[in-house]
Amino acid sequence: MGEESGKIPELEQQLSGLRSQVEALSAKTPENKLSMIVFSGDLDKVLAAFVIANGAVAMGMDVVMFFTFWGTPVLRDKGKKAGSKDMMGTMFGAMLPKGTGRVKLSKMNMGGMGTAMMKSLMKKKNVASLDQMLEMAAELGVRIFICEMSMDLMGFTREEMIDYPDLTYCGVAKFLEEAQNSKVQLFI
Amino acid sequence: MGEESGKIPELEQQLSGLRSQVEALSAKTPENKLSMIVFSGDLDKVLAAFVIANGAVAMGMDVVMFFTFWGTPVLRDKGKKAGSKDMMGTMFGAMLPKGTGRVKLSKMNMGGMGTAMMKSLMKKKNVASLDQMLEMAAELGVRIFICEMSMDLMGFTREEMIDYPDLTYCGVAKFLEEAQNSKVQLFI
Amino acid sequence: MGEESGKIPELEQQLSGLRSQVEALSAKTPENKLSMIVFSGDLDKVLAAFVIANGAVAMGMDVVMFFTFWGTPVLRDKGKKAGSKDMMGTMFGAMLPKGTGRVKLSKMNMGGMGTAMMKSLMKKKNVASLDQMLEMAAELGVRIFICEMSMDLMGFTREEMIDYPDLTYCGVAKFLEEAQNSKVQLFI
Repeated sequence: MGEESGKIPELEQQLSGLRSQVEALSAKTPENKLSMIVFSGDLDKVLAAFVIANGAVAMGMDVVMFFTFWGTPVLRDKGKKAGSKDMMGTMFGAMLPKGTGRVKLSKMNMGGMGTAMMKSLMKKKNVASLDQMLEMAAELGVRIFICEMSMDLMGFTREEMIDYPDLTYCGVAKFLEEAQNSKVQLFI
Repeated sequence: MGEESGKIPELEQQLSGLRSQVEALSAKTPENKLSMIVFSGDLDKVLAAFVIANGAVAMGMDVVMFFTFWGTPVLRDKGKKAGSKDMMGTMFGAMLPKGTGRVKLSKMNMGGMGTAMMKSLMKKKNVASLDQMLEMAAELGVRIFICEMSMDLMGFTREEMIDYPDLTYCGVAKFLEEAQNSKVQLFI
Repeated sequence: MGEESGKIPELEQQLSGLRSQVEALSAKTPENKLSMIVFSGDLDKVLAAFVIANGAVAMGMDVVMFFTFWGTPVLRDKGKKAGSKDMMGTMFGAMLPKGTGRVKLSKMNMGGMGTAMMKSLMKKKNVASLDQMLEMAAELGVRIFICEMSMDLMGFTREEMIDYPDLTYCGVAKFLEEAQNSKVQLFI
């Protein structure tokens, strides 16, 4: 029996070792979070991104969307002025869609006819529009990141971007921090 | 020694606490599963999706593919009739590829010539065709989900879809449930 | 007290059971790694892939990029000769971009003008070029895999590929092995 209870310090040590292991493991285990890169600026893909985002929040997941490259102009506010820009910025500004209403299908756009058809179909079938999806995302607490490098490249200014409750201007490192401890990551 | 064995209830309690922690962690740890969204309807991307899916099953992973938007028409059966449709549904039905045989390359399609070239090359190099990949996926037990919202939008009916052993019509929530506990997720 | 210390073997057994559970869990927990499939051969997407890859390494992640399909020709070395090819291989070789310098934007290419504009903008804004990103990736230790099936299909030979410190020619299974124990996976 003396031999038996001599094992107690050993047990304590083993238990404490195991506890450290579990803590290390816990730190490595991803959170119930979805991190999405919205690289595309096509209506169909941006819609898909918001359907996924809003669906995920509804299921209790934390969601962050990182808008970069062609995805960036989608978040411009059509009612806002950009202020003065250099020539390149003015060109990009004019050529890229100004906000959710100007976004086109990646296929079957057919000079805008396909996109218009799809929008009227969505209305008829009670599928939320991109604007409504964005509103829903805001209400549900989807966090939106906008890539500063893309903004800078395309000459977009913060003044021309939408008002959104949880909006952050940042770089890829900030996004990767979120992605690193997310269960699900997607590049759209 | 009395002091020593007085520690036994304490040890038991600590052990039980740690066990709960491990169980909680276990529930959060993803399964050996691959969840894929097949959004694209391009031959090259759908092929890539099936190469990845079949490769993953062969490695012992559980695989689920969620076909949505342009990916949906790929799963139509060219030998089946759709039944009566409204005008929009008839238009989409006519414009989108009817099944694996009609799918085109995303680049270098060149009016169909590039796609034909790629197919002949695949045959020559003993790369399985899309049809063969789909058959393989069925045999290997890849699960296929079809997005009901996309079907509804494009006016596709279940009657015109392929026969596949493990086919589910569902929404994005069902897909996210799978993705949530998957090791790997891809948007293609 | 005899009763108390009789519990010691039981505690030992429970501890050992829990330890096995923790070890099993540890094996299932992904590593701090990013696995990326670079399927696209578009300048914008390949740039994004490298920005993400280099950013992730800088944050201490292990990074592996799997170049497949349209991504493969991006890694050709413009200064190298391919050796003799069959007709198809020669055609693909001529039609696909030869290396990082020939890669085009997915949108707004406008016969090369948009791509040139973007490149000049990147220079002006101090964004690294694709060539510089590749060099950085090499220095930082990003591992690059090239899909052998794509090489074979497009008739590319190893002799025409870039020199890169950590380059592996392999199939999808090798990539999936990496993806399986990665925290983050992306299909670009």
